[in-house]
Amino acid sequence: MDAVNEERYASGPIGVFDSGYGGLTILKEIRRALPQYDYVYLGDNARAPYGPRSFDIVYRFTLEAVRFLFARGCRLVILACNTASAKALRTIQQNDLPQIDPSRRVLGVIRPTAESIGRLTKTGHIGVLGTVGTVSSQSYDMEVEKLYPGYRVTSEACPMWVPLVENLEADGDGADYFVDKYVGRLLEGNETLDTIVLACTHYPLLYGKIRRRVPEGIRVVCQGEIVAESLKDYLGRHPEMERRCRRGGTCEYLTTENPEKFTGLGRVFLNEDVIATHVDID
Amino acid sequence: MDAVNEERYASGPIGVFDSGYGGLTILKEIRRALPQYDYVYLGDNARAPYGPRSFDIVYRFTLEAVRFLFARGCRLVILACNTASAKALRTIQQNDLPQIDPSRRVLGVIRPTAESIGRLTKTGHIGVLGTVGTVSSQSYDMEVEKLYPGYRVTSEACPMWVPLVENLEADGDGADYFVDKYVGRLLEGNETLDTIVLACTHYPLLYGKIRRRVPEGIRVVCQGEIVAESLKDYLGRHPEMERRCRRGGTCEYLTTENPEKFTGLGRVFLNEDVIATHVDID
Repeated sequence: MDAVNEERYASGPIGVFDSGYGGLTILKEIRRALPQYDYVYLGDNARAPYGPRSFDIVYRFTLEAVRFLFARGCRLVILACNTASAKALRTIQQNDLPQIDPSRRVLGVIRPTAESIGRLTKTGHIGVLGTVGTVSSQSYDMEVEKLYPGYRVTSEACPMWVPLVENLEADGDGADYFVDKYVGRLLEGNETLDTIVLACTHYPLLYGKIRRRVPEGIRVVCQGEIVAESLKDYLGRHPEMERRCRRGGTCEYLTTENPEKFTGLGRVFLNEDVIATHVDID
Repeated sequence: MDAVNEERYASGPIGVFDSGYGGLTILKEIRRALPQYDYVYLGDNARAPYGPRSFDIVYRFTLEAVRFLFARGCRLVILACNTASAKALRTIQQNDLPQIDPSRRVLGVIRPTAESIGRLTKTGHIGVLGTVGTVSSQSYDMEVEKLYPGYRVTSEACPMWVPLVENLEADGDGADYFVDKYVGRLLEGNETLDTIVLACTHYPLLYGKIRRRVPEGIRVVCQGEIVAESLKDYLGRHPEMERRCRRGGTCEYLTTENPEKFTGLGRVFLNEDVIATHVDID
């Protein structure tokens, strides 16, 4: 086998990228559904959060992360971050990937989430709670419109929720005001809304408070299981990619920040201690 | 005059650096006290906030900013950011500056603030409210100990205050919980404390709420005027540097983020519209 073919059939870990810690909520569900593969998780914690940043910056940082994970041997990279999926995925898939290596793949979290919530809603009116970046990109509106023409999406940006989670205030009384504020705004005047998606990987840590604020008849959906099921389905439909996902059941954690800091906050998201390694990606 | 001497006597704008928008509260007071000079403000908004980041990352980002401002002609750079002053200033002054250009200067905000609050306290017990980075560095404790041996410093990290200010929640009811929480912790069991410094450039925007939470007999000090007075004093004592600060009264605003975003939030800190230019510094 020559070098070109060897590279073409070589396998590597599945890359899971997030700006920070939130993607760990997605990784957890992916590993539960697909424990047989090797994974490498990369958190760009030195430059997180991406939520409030502009298109140009999110695109540049995300592309650096994807290139880095490709150089680590990943054939498949999941952007486990709604802001990166919203602002960078399309350009990376259409402009960068063909030049870097057309046989590799980068997948996001918005398409599978939109597919899934479209199947769940009965009224055809969906609520999206996300970062300023995700909401202003209108990515959910566009995906839902493509998949389910005529369905309605109402969105609300929740900029205080990531700081609350990262400062371990998600269970404290100080979070109530901001759960009330953003959920209240989403619901006001939108009586037909029957399904709400937590479209930021940090938000599942506020699930209890959000669930209590939302009327019982409205479903509140987290993305972890949806993304995991969608990846399982994708690998079933793409055996050529499945063969390139290395088997072993391991998971390596990489962070652009100090690894001790990653371990401390990683525990909040995973309920277990992880050993992380520092890397520079820019 | 040969090239070396020309460079040695050339003048440039005074550089004012902050990780984000907070340094604008310092810039405002500096320009009020010293309106005759040219200024260039640099906000590393694409990678802000620095408050929660590790020593290594804050040092690396700050050094990049200082080198960038030197390349723009600045002979004097003010780190108008407590986290950068706490975690990067000493190493830059001692290790990097002698190699880059020993005739240039980088000054921080902690030394002048410590000098000033040491003169204000009567009990010798000072309170410091700052970011996790500033508090964990113990920079205020060390500066006060050097200048006023025997004085006591009690610190409290206020990690939710920067997100509150940057999300325009400083005047909202949601901020009350976090003002109560951090100020309450600072005061608890510290009856001798008579002077509190707001040791983060964002915190003046929460001054009203903080002032109402602190008993009347305790002074609450913002840094802007202190840093401005200290710079005036420094330039008076260093005529060779004063001559290298270009006169003209202008101010240029640079940001690593999208300039429209800078203009929007800049208004909150300066009460006026500023036109910013995008730059890459890494």
